[in-house]
Amino acid sequence: MARKISYIFLCMNVIPLLAAAASQACSAQSDAKCSQTGEWNGEFFPGIPKIKYEGPYTKNKFAYKWYNAEEVILGKKMKDWLRFSVAFWHTFRGTGVDPFGAPTKFWPWEDGTNSIAMAKRRMRANFEFINKLGVDRWCFHDRDIAPEGKTLQETNSNLDEVVKLAKTLQGNNIRPLWGTAQLFMHPRYMHGAATSSELGVYVYAAAQVKKAMEVTHYLGGENYVFWGGREGYQTLLNTDMEFELDHMAKFLEAAAAYKRKIGFTGTLLIEPKPQEPTKHQYDWDAATTTNFLRKYGLIGDFKLNIECNHATLSGHSCHHDVETARINGLLGNIDANSGDAQTGWDTDQFLTDTREATMIMLSVIKNGH
Amino acid sequence: MARKISYIFLCMNVIPLLAAAASQACSAQSDAKCSQTGEWNGEFFPGIPKIKYEGPYTKNKFAYKWYNAEEVILGKKMKDWLRFSVAFWHTFRGTGVDPFGAPTKFWPWEDGTNSIAMAKRRMRANFEFINKLGVDRWCFHDRDIAPEGKTLQETNSNLDEVVKLAKTLQGNNIRPLWGTAQLFMHPRYMHGAATSSELGVYVYAAAQVKKAMEVTHYLGGENYVFWGGREGYQTLLNTDMEFELDHMAKFLEAAAAYKRKIGFTGTLLIEPKPQEPTKHQYDWDAATTTNFLRKYGLIGDFKLNIECNHATLSGHSCHHDVETARINGLLGNIDANSGDAQTGWDTDQFLTDTREATMIMLSVIKNGH
Amino acid sequence: MARKISYIFLCMNVIPLLAAAASQACSAQSDAKCSQTGEWNGEFFPGIPKIKYEGPYTKNKFAYKWYNAEEVILGKKMKDWLRFSVAFWHTFRGTGVDPFGAPTKFWPWEDGTNSIAMAKRRMRANFEFINKLGVDRWCFHDRDIAPEGKTLQETNSNLDEVVKLAKTLQGNNIRPLWGTAQLFMHPRYMHGAATSSELGVYVYAAAQVKKAMEVTHYLGGENYVFWGGREGYQTLLNTDMEFELDHMAKFLEAAAAYKRKIGFTGTLLIEPKPQEPTKHQYDWDAATTTNFLRKYGLIGDFKLNIECNHATLSGHSCHHDVETARINGLLGNIDANSGDAQTGWDTDQFLTDTREATMIMLSVIKNGH
Amino acid sequence: MARKISYIFLCMNVIPLLAAAASQACSAQSDAKCSQTGEWNGEFFPGIPKIKYEGPYTKNKFAYKWYNAEEVILGKKMKDWLRFSVAFWHTFRGTGVDPFGAPTKFWPWEDGTNSIAMAKRRMRANFEFINKLGVDRWCFHDRDIAPEGKTLQETNSNLDEVVKLAKTLQGNNIRPLWGTAQLFMHPRYMHGAATSSELGVYVYAAAQVKKAMEVTHYLGGENYVFWGGREGYQTLLNTDMEFELDHMAKFLEAAAAYKRKIGFTGTLLIEPKPQEPTKHQYDWDAATTTNFLRKYGLIGDFKLNIECNHATLSGHSCHHDVETARINGLLGNIDANSGDAQTGWDTDQFLTDTREATMIMLSVIKNGH
Repeated sequence: MARKISYIFLCMNVIPLLAAAASQACSAQSDAKCSQTGEWNGEFFPGIPKIKYEGPYTKNKFAYKWYNAEEVILGKKMKDWLRFSVAFWHTFRGTGVDPFGAPTKFWPWEDGTNSIAMAKRRMRANFEFINKLGVDRWCFHDRDIAPEGKTLQETNSNLDEVVKLAKTLQGNNIRPLWGTAQLFMHPRYMHGAATSSELGVYVYAAAQVKKAMEVTHYLGGENYVFWGGREGYQTLLNTDMEFELDHMAKFLEAAAAYKRKIGFTGTLLIEPKPQEPTKHQYDWDAATTTNFLRKYGLIGDFKLNIECNHATLSGHSCHHDVETARINGLLGNIDANSGDAQTGWDTDQFLTDTREATMIMLSVIKNGH
Repeated sequence: MARKISYIFLCMNVIPLLAAAASQACSAQSDAKCSQTGEWNGEFFPGIPKIKYEGPYTKNKFAYKWYNAEEVILGKKMKDWLRFSVAFWHTFRGTGVDPFGAPTKFWPWEDGTNSIAMAKRRMRANFEFINKLGVDRWCFHDRDIAPEGKTLQETNSNLDEVVKLAKTLQGNNIRPLWGTAQLFMHPRYMHGAATSSELGVYVYAAAQVKKAMEVTHYLGGENYVFWGGREGYQTLLNTDMEFELDHMAKFLEAAAAYKRKIGFTGTLLIEPKPQEPTKHQYDWDAATTTNFLRKYGLIGDFKLNIECNHATLSGHSCHHDVETARINGLLGNIDANSGDAQTGWDTDQFLTDTREATMIMLSVIKNGH
Repeated sequence: MARKISYIFLCMNVIPLLAAAASQACSAQSDAKCSQTGEWNGEFFPGIPKIKYEGPYTKNKFAYKWYNAEEVILGKKMKDWLRFSVAFWHTFRGTGVDPFGAPTKFWPWEDGTNSIAMAKRRMRANFEFINKLGVDRWCFHDRDIAPEGKTLQETNSNLDEVVKLAKTLQGNNIRPLWGTAQLFMHPRYMHGAATSSELGVYVYAAAQVKKAMEVTHYLGGENYVFWGGREGYQTLLNTDMEFELDHMAKFLEAAAAYKRKIGFTGTLLIEPKPQEPTKHQYDWDAATTTNFLRKYGLIGDFKLNIECNHATLSGHSCHHDVETARINGLLGNIDANSGDAQTGWDTDQFLTDTREATMIMLSVIKNGH
Repeated sequence: MARKISYIFLCMNVIPLLAAAASQACSAQSDAKCSQTGEWNGEFFPGIPKIKYEGPYTKNKFAYKWYNAEEVILGKKMKDWLRFSVAFWHTFRGTGVDPFGAPTKFWPWEDGTNSIAMAKRRMRANFEFINKLGVDRWCFHDRDIAPEGKTLQETNSNLDEVVKLAKTLQGNNIRPLWGTAQLFMHPRYMHGAATSSELGVYVYAAAQVKKAMEVTHYLGGENYVFWGGREGYQTLLNTDMEFELDHMAKFLEAAAAYKRKIGFTGTLLIEPKPQEPTKHQYDWDAATTTNFLRKYGLIGDFKLNIECNHATLSGHSCHHDVETARINGLLGNIDANSGDAQTGWDTDQFLTDTREATMIMLSVIKNGH
């Protein structure tokens, strides 16, 4: 029986074209309000039609040359082989900042705030974008789509308000490939979330995951993802690795139990990455994460979300880690990006190397039949 | 004849102790003003005495165990072998942010603004820190010590105001090891400063260097540093490396000419780094930078500022790059930090490995006699 | 209850001193026989006394300054904390060859042949060396100590003859820390041993392991080691990783069964290494190997032999991999070497960095109590 | 004016097809002589015709699909853009050995000796191969093509005998792209050749270069190459880098003088490589080598031979190092191989990545017009 496999579509390379065409009215850098009610009028990407397949010889820049969603290859439609998904984080919250530089990317509809009104406006931009691309999946972290409040209650209420809008905008055909909780940006997580040395932080992280899983379920999400960016260490001199891994296992065990309790039938995914921000991240690569799942009896509840650039940072080809996940029965999702062979950090570029992509497809096809 | 060599003292490992002892009054996180005039009252590091040498067996945490400034070794005082310098950037502007996390480090005297008043308060903290450490050098980027204004004129005026205070606080014994212009944080520099494809950016960078060199001269600085964090490329597909290097050479040539014009007798230094933020930085390592200086006839005007962690990121031991600079007659300064052998980015840790430090001292000693 | 932990002592840094003192008579480079019977006369390391502990201030080059075998630390003798072992391979068969150069190291007793007589002479040198060092463990690959014959039968007979001598020379106090089969040098193993695509090679490897385990048992060995240098791939385009891992598991399962059959009570160890000679070696690191053992139900039969330089080549600190083995209950042995942080291959140097060694001891101590 | 640029053709991927077709008669593994005179009868690659261009749709495995030597692209014939050359070393002397394994590749005409007769037989195989490929350049190290004798005189005499045959076999159309002296395999070079600490070794290396340059000149070679595999260090603790570089410069200066003396008009090339066999090789990369040439006033006498896999091992893309050589006016030759992005040593594979090859061609084209 076929197992399902999904691709995340990082929309960065489409953005420049769209952005260039966008109206400059109501810019974040102007003081003027966008309309009398302060809201954005009309389209976010005006002048951009719905993107269609027109074949390799089209001159139209806003067309697919190779991706023909309905075309059947090896017995499956292209859109079923790879269920592309718009990543809210990369597409709408990336600012072009790096450790040595300030933001360089500004959407015209951003007003400089992190208000609920702004969150809703972004969500409307997101669905215009999804509809124009003609895909039917998106993915998000809780904190990307709604602002953090002063209390957890207020934060959850903010999230509910934005998610309700998203539910409406999704309509009948669109739904999340996955949702997740962002457990790494806030200072409370500086020493980890499920592996924090502070009990309060551990509990807060659990509450955040509970809520993120609920909204993912509410939106009809297919998967729920864990990326443990701060679940690791800077040095073993002040870290009890065994203790922290025990804690992380209990955390994930509780998450799996809660999934069953609320009737969420989506897959739980762990995304390996070797390091960055930490010196060592516990979910180092596919094999390491698989060992963790086996040790703590979690192998039946979780699969893996392989990101190519994470694989190469851990010393493997992307194909290797995809195949390692597959032969352990754990290939759940692929973050189909690419890195730079000469840099030691995640550049998170589009996967444009057809040689590497072809190798990965070998495993996807083996997995899918 | 002896050549001079200097060390930058990155004060990070002293900070935790000092911070722990600091009063929590007038915190950035409180809404209360610090005094009726809104200014900080009393010491920034209350209860911390001047740090003195007490020998390896002292129980006093606020004492030097090994660094005895006046002790003569191989015919020179320790303080003359290595002229430690407090880096304003690392010590007072670092916030503990990383690409995946928000700031985690807060000085009690920070009020959340980047005002001139705040800049002056920080400068007073800086000199209290320097005096308590008992060192006599500091170093800075222009934008660390004074806020950017709306125009270059306003920015320069801000800088003048803070520098005037610094001049007073320096007294007779303290002065900059070096000053520099920060040409990488502002979005205008996203494609480079001296290698930007925009003429206006190139000119703006030149104006910024001119001013930074003037204030370094005014403060009695010993060196002026160039770190070209954005002077490089992301891909050669859209970069004319030869053209950009020609531009960079003209830029540095003009800087050297201006140095002579204003009578600044300090050394001009270039700090190599292989990459980060760019995929490739033109000043890759000591040998690459030396080749550049030779090619463009700049070899007599510049020396090198070797940062250990930059050396290791370029595939060399720190000792190798220090020695390469030395045998080319270009060892001007050392940023005596250390990296993590397993990470592919600059961790900028203190150099605590006595084996590596001993190797570096071999070159320093050869250079100094 | 305390678990046992052992160190392999790579004797390379002692060798130069011994070699310098060695007589040049009967050299491999001379045509003269060593005696009328062609045998080596007298000591192999003449003039070198038994090495003893003399404390840190001794001027004697042939003395231990820090290693005092009988000294009790944390309730255990030093010799029990770390059971140093002479590696036959490194000590007596290394020739100083590298991929770009011919042998540069010649023992005076080598006659240029790989005869049984030569093998026995080397074995006598080995035990003189062990006795002079004052250690009581040694380790070997089958092919290091005896020459390969024209048939497996002849090869095994050669091995028996040399092993019989070794048994005598061991006396009552010395025995192998481990034995192993060399499954990587012979061309038959070019595509693997337990993962070879040729049935005949797989069977031959099994026969070789069977014999090597028997002689290890006969000699009183404490452990038996597997290093799968060719168990991996050059490219996944022509490799079925799942199939090969299944084969490797069957191979190891059979080895564990044979161990029980012959009553060998030593520990079976797997030595992880990420790559070299292959592009990817299946026993990549401690976590990967542990996952393999869990997947195939071999976790109770095997432990790990962590080599520091292998750990660093896989992107970890040595301490990390030792600790990973420990918290999985699999820390069996340590190959206490060190690498070069700037090279991408195994330099297999002595572990002389006290900082790294101290970190490792933290795990050894946690493991031992 | 156009500068000339040449490619080395490493023939490894053609070999398997040819070898498969080769007769197994007169194998190295048989004891039988090949003919009554002991010589090889008939063709070395029987049944293999001359390889011709037949276009991308040919079914003939022994045909060029894309390389059409006479086709004009951008005003130049393909054979003039890239002058492919058969590397004697890779093609005829590679045995498939690696640091953990014995030879695995055996040509049927090899008799297990390194005799002059064997050397001549190989040379005849070489020219049959060149003629069947339809290229007109080859390249060699002195020791690849003729055996070392007991004295330099005997060694040179051996070389002369084989070179005389090569001269005849070359005919009117074929000649060396370059020749070189192998200064790294013999134990005498274990600590370097031009940077050896032994005067005798330095002089011997000079004599070897003198002879190799003479025979390259005699054969009509276009270039003469220096690869300083042992010109570097293992540690700076026992190496005076400045002194060694001074020696290397004198050595190269003498070579350039001798070139003029004998009227050899070919280009002298240096091939950068960062490390392997040494921990650090002085000709680290294009920029480092260029700095060396500038420092010692050798910039007019030498150009660079960029090997792609060497470039990637030094932390650069191949394109980067080719372009660095070009903009310094030093792009002389390209060793168009490729590495594995995940391994830390030279895998020396064929450059089959069209993306990387296209980037390199950008520099070749800029260089050529």
